[in-house]
Amino acid sequence: MMINSKRLMETINTSAAIGATENAGLHRLTLSNEDMEMRATFVHWLETARLQVTVDDFGNMYGRREGTNPDLSPVVIGSHLDTQPYGGKYDGIIGVLTALEVIRTLNDEGIKTERPIVIVNFTNEEGARFTPPLLGSGAVIGDYSKSSVYDTVDAEGTRFETALHESGYQGEEGHRLRDAHAFMELHIEQGPVLEQKQKSIGVVQGIQGLAWMTVHIKGEADHAGTIPMSGRKDALVAASSMVTALSKYAASVEDLVITVGTLQVAPSSPNVVPSDVTFTIDMRHPDDHMRKGVPMAIRKIISDTSKMYGVDFALETDYQAETVHFPERIQHILLEETASHGYEAEQFYSGASHDAKNMSRIAETAMIFVPSANGKSHHEEEYTSGADIEKGANVLLGATKRLANEK
Amino acid sequence: MMINSKRLMETINTSAAIGATENAGLHRLTLSNEDMEMRATFVHWLETARLQVTVDDFGNMYGRREGTNPDLSPVVIGSHLDTQPYGGKYDGIIGVLTALEVIRTLNDEGIKTERPIVIVNFTNEEGARFTPPLLGSGAVIGDYSKSSVYDTVDAEGTRFETALHESGYQGEEGHRLRDAHAFMELHIEQGPVLEQKQKSIGVVQGIQGLAWMTVHIKGEADHAGTIPMSGRKDALVAASSMVTALSKYAASVEDLVITVGTLQVAPSSPNVVPSDVTFTIDMRHPDDHMRKGVPMAIRKIISDTSKMYGVDFALETDYQAETVHFPERIQHILLEETASHGYEAEQFYSGASHDAKNMSRIAETAMIFVPSANGKSHHEEEYTSGADIEKGANVLLGATKRLANEK
Repeated sequence: MMINSKRLMETINTSAAIGATENAGLHRLTLSNEDMEMRATFVHWLETARLQVTVDDFGNMYGRREGTNPDLSPVVIGSHLDTQPYGGKYDGIIGVLTALEVIRTLNDEGIKTERPIVIVNFTNEEGARFTPPLLGSGAVIGDYSKSSVYDTVDAEGTRFETALHESGYQGEEGHRLRDAHAFMELHIEQGPVLEQKQKSIGVVQGIQGLAWMTVHIKGEADHAGTIPMSGRKDALVAASSMVTALSKYAASVEDLVITVGTLQVAPSSPNVVPSDVTFTIDMRHPDDHMRKGVPMAIRKIISDTSKMYGVDFALETDYQAETVHFPERIQHILLEETASHGYEAEQFYSGASHDAKNMSRIAETAMIFVPSANGKSHHEEEYTSGADIEKGANVLLGATKRLANEK
Repeated sequence: MMINSKRLMETINTSAAIGATENAGLHRLTLSNEDMEMRATFVHWLETARLQVTVDDFGNMYGRREGTNPDLSPVVIGSHLDTQPYGGKYDGIIGVLTALEVIRTLNDEGIKTERPIVIVNFTNEEGARFTPPLLGSGAVIGDYSKSSVYDTVDAEGTRFETALHESGYQGEEGHRLRDAHAFMELHIEQGPVLEQKQKSIGVVQGIQGLAWMTVHIKGEADHAGTIPMSGRKDALVAASSMVTALSKYAASVEDLVITVGTLQVAPSSPNVVPSDVTFTIDMRHPDDHMRKGVPMAIRKIISDTSKMYGVDFALETDYQAETVHFPERIQHILLEETASHGYEAEQFYSGASHDAKNMSRIAETAMIFVPSANGKSHHEEEYTSGADIEKGANVLLGATKRLANEK
């Protein structure tokens, strides 16, 4: 049994036209006019596939295909239909649309399953219009209170609840996803591993843990013309030395990534030696034991460099997340389905976070990755070939059918 | 003949109370209420010293002591009474107030001079409220048109002309300083040289030349979690390596200073590898020949580092100024006056710019530096001892008397 790749690509192309940018990307922020048009189109597709459509009080959308035993918990498949500003047409979207294609294929073949199958489109996964990201899936599992989600505002000051209400997609609390037999999400890799290994299927082992830190460097402001180099306590020279040292350190440890994504300088005048620099550190490694040692190494780099340049520092850890390990049972099913089609799979941890991370708290969870050209995502140039999407959809189809027939 | 140091310190203390900050600094921005109160006090002092007070159309204030030969061009002495935000009580101010003390001493002693002596207070030297700095002296020598000066706005959008008019210090174009036999400015060093050499008098050889450059680094934005270190084109890691290399290079060349005072990162998100960094370079060296070679060395550092990190760069020179060399004749007079009092002098170039730089275009010009504690300026902790100010004032007194008696 194989999915209909022509139909799947037509569906992806229809989506790609809703919020299309000049450079063939997609700009479809949560609950924008484009998102509302996409949601209406999605409802039409779900209804045409004879699914029962419901929406919960966070705007998460569900399409349920009944099982022969409706009392069993469902197999849930899907992802999100929103995008980053001027983002791509694959990230999240193909997770929802391959799920739809799985249902259509089961319908075509007249295949019934023991368990219900539910397609989901989570609200505001990207976090581009409202923060935090993974909002819809996080709210469903109880990570955020309803009032805190509703009071979140976008850059223009519009409350989430107002935008949700006006969109017409403010559903009922009773429709929230409560439990699932399994959750599976197909997604673009957003990295270079599959492309480099020339494999079409990534069987994701989990989501790697991370830590976010903030570093403040305190030097001394001085006149750029009158103070010789030897008499300075330049916070930016010290911070720059730290940034390069952190990058070198990360490159020396397998699977470790460290990113300094923001850096602010004060007083920020061309002819004043900087007195203060603040920068952030994003550190990720899939091994929890390893990752717990890294902050000590980072602190040593910051401390040693501060001493060398005669500046003071403060280092704070803002956020930490453990690595999420997906159960090997479903990974094994995905590997078997991959092999049954003659495709090749690579197993690795996801560097990025996904709705699957939240779903793993209430269900056995798995993810299928398909290759990203040049590892690019969150960008108009994001690209995954139709052939790879087809392969991923076939693996998703086979695994969904197997899990939905489990007692 | 010596100045009256008790009277001079009282005058400085009176000034220090007009705009005093909690931390014993001074906050007296151009044409603010504090500046207006200082100007009114200054007018009172000038009139009490029996000087003829005039104000030009840029708010520059003059107090003229007539010479026995009024047709001769005057000897002009002074500086500025405005400060940086939360700045110090010496920068500029002691140049005006020691000039006043010189006049008071000549009055006390009943000494007449051939040439007139004019005290000047230049408007907006600091450039803190209105840009550019050195506004009043630059306008007087014709570097800026009257309309461009008048149309300059502060951070709140107030036009310079409006602020000037409302202050009551919008004088006449005919009062602008047109020529001078000599110009002398006493100023704090704003650097560590005199303190380190334990000398009280700096005889300034000129103002060192400088170049301002802007560097743009173009890398590639990537997901902080999914792209391994080896696959990145991180604009901030590249820029950081440049900042440390520039600092090391400057430290290796005598008298060279290089400052990266501003640095902006884009897209500036903790979990996105930076694609773009823009930073400024301020480079100064007193030797014109040397300074012309430095930009080539800077370009090589930027270019080599860009190659190493696989990023692109653009380097633009925004502004260049030649070193201004003050005439040796007046330096010699200042050295003689210093020696006559048994003080010790050090000759060197000023790293900072001053109104004297502009005045050197219309008159033989000199500057006297007095020590800055810890080299600090533009800061509430700015400090110069009363003993050093007294010595500087005595040198200014002797030199003024000699120059004002030249035919």
